[in-house]
Amino acid sequence: MELEKFLAHNKRRMDERIFSVLPESHSDTDIDQFYRIMREYPTRKGKGVRGNLCLLSCGMFGAEPDLSLDTAAAIELFESWVLIHDDIEDGSDIRRGDVTLHLKYGIPLAINAGDSLHNRMWQILLRNRQTLGLDLTVRIGDEFLHMISQTTEGQHIELSWTENCRFDLSEGDYYSMCTRKTSWYTCISPLRLGAMIAGVDSRILDSMIEIGTNMGLAFQVQDDILNLVGDEKKYGKEILGDLREGKRTLALIHALKNSGKETRRQIETVMKKQRMDKTEEDIRLVLKAMKENGSIGYAREKAAWFARAAKERFDRVFADVPESDDKQRVKEIIDFVVSREK
Amino acid sequence: MELEKFLAHNKRRMDERIFSVLPESHSDTDIDQFYRIMREYPTRKGKGVRGNLCLLSCGMFGAEPDLSLDTAAAIELFESWVLIHDDIEDGSDIRRGDVTLHLKYGIPLAINAGDSLHNRMWQILLRNRQTLGLDLTVRIGDEFLHMISQTTEGQHIELSWTENCRFDLSEGDYYSMCTRKTSWYTCISPLRLGAMIAGVDSRILDSMIEIGTNMGLAFQVQDDILNLVGDEKKYGKEILGDLREGKRTLALIHALKNSGKETRRQIETVMKKQRMDKTEEDIRLVLKAMKENGSIGYAREKAAWFARAAKERFDRVFADVPESDDKQRVKEIIDFVVSREK
Repeated sequence: MELEKFLAHNKRRMDERIFSVLPESHSDTDIDQFYRIMREYPTRKGKGVRGNLCLLSCGMFGAEPDLSLDTAAAIELFESWVLIHDDIEDGSDIRRGDVTLHLKYGIPLAINAGDSLHNRMWQILLRNRQTLGLDLTVRIGDEFLHMISQTTEGQHIELSWTENCRFDLSEGDYYSMCTRKTSWYTCISPLRLGAMIAGVDSRILDSMIEIGTNMGLAFQVQDDILNLVGDEKKYGKEILGDLREGKRTLALIHALKNSGKETRRQIETVMKKQRMDKTEEDIRLVLKAMKENGSIGYAREKAAWFARAAKERFDRVFADVPESDDKQRVKEIIDFVVSREK
Repeated sequence: MELEKFLAHNKRRMDERIFSVLPESHSDTDIDQFYRIMREYPTRKGKGVRGNLCLLSCGMFGAEPDLSLDTAAAIELFESWVLIHDDIEDGSDIRRGDVTLHLKYGIPLAINAGDSLHNRMWQILLRNRQTLGLDLTVRIGDEFLHMISQTTEGQHIELSWTENCRFDLSEGDYYSMCTRKTSWYTCISPLRLGAMIAGVDSRILDSMIEIGTNMGLAFQVQDDILNLVGDEKKYGKEILGDLREGKRTLALIHALKNSGKETRRQIETVMKKQRMDKTEEDIRLVLKAMKENGSIGYAREKAAWFARAAKERFDRVFADVPESDDKQRVKEIIDFVVSREK
């Protein structure tokens, strides 16, 4: 609980930075609507885990965390624009407890608002030069380039699995996709960016990759689980949305692998259907196969395993980094990633 | 003809820079497809007017044009990602002589590919530091921020006119929307960026706004005309696409204003229909009203007027800039903007 308060406190501070680049109103009604749409996802409740990781990493390596506040805000703003586009790509209905932007305003305006937020993200990043100087500002930009390159690559892989009706997927394929889609922007880059601003050397930055990969995988697998068995009110997204959208999750891959030939065929038939053609019975069939094969329990074990692996590596690699509240909180976040209900 | 060869030559040189940040292939078949999709619009034939304007502006102010080659390439890459998203937003079928990206690969993969190209655009822009130094690199970034902010704002206005069934639009509304949607990224920023790299003062940069606004309006109005009466093979987009997509163009606004009450009502009824519900007869009705009111001729006159205004201002403001091939070519491009058939 204490951690969640801490996260929420920093989230508000990051939001201030975000809203400083998002105009509130305009005398022209069309432009005014545009500004309102742009502010919508950033206004909705989010946890701010990613930006917080950046702030904590900066503090843990001995720098004033606020030096990384704009960068942390840019990470959060990245999530906003990427979620707008993701929600269209996945055909999602609910985001952060409200209907998705494209359902509210149509796909055209939503795509365009996402692009504009992408642009505002760079506005915050270039503003960094006022406090961090030109060289560090551009190196932070480089990290964002790499992070976005990984995220879009991961997103393409996941979308193409659904598009191309792929079922011949291994756990390894899944982790490799999630590392790109989730780990980089959720954990690796936030940790690296904070540390970079604190001026650590490249050896430490490199070590963040393995820690952040494991942590990100724990985060994604937990997210998959919440999507199956979570409380929609807390979770803020549609429960069972992944199944309806045809996503290849760890539990699905596990159920496919461990089901008999007939059940496997039935699951594949359901998962090949378009969202609107899937019946409640279809969804129940897949869920039943997951339950019979212990696929959700298996996913829980894996999430816990990845979180443990992240923490062990963290303790080992950063044994020499002085203990501090910030250092302690990064570890608490690793636990939170798998204990969270939202 | 000589000008078109010149444009095409530089286009090839900008393309080289673009393709240096777009990987050709990957051993993973999914990622390989992703790379192929990303290369698709940049590979298709374009004129490269925008990037060329940047190169010429740089040369005209006495600097080596190649100093602006990466920036010019980034302008062209901007167009590619923006067109991918535009084509989805407008529901367009044809782009640069081939089917649009989302018709070929589906909306989800196309949105994501556009986002990834947006990212690669920043990769080129940050690479500028190797030749231009950090300070100029970041100031070029600032210009892109402003340019994209204008473009997305203009795009929102145009989309919301269709979405909200707006017909009470004046010529002034149209020009104000086009200045944002077209003039900034087509003329103002390309001219400013080239001049900025050549090291001109802010007074000259400011003067580019009026010149580029007029030039961009000439460009957009000519584009509207080609959309109505052009040769599809040369134009590379669907003829009459604007009417089918419900766009408010100058000729439409003119026809609405000058038609009798009954015709006006008929036009509005047609324009309110969804693309797929519009019949050939619907389209003929609107075209007929445009022809009867001389709306296309009116648009031609306006395009010529804006081009003349741009050239007069250009001659006046840059009277002291030594005559050169590059300076001459900028003026030729102003003529080309309204004489072009594609």
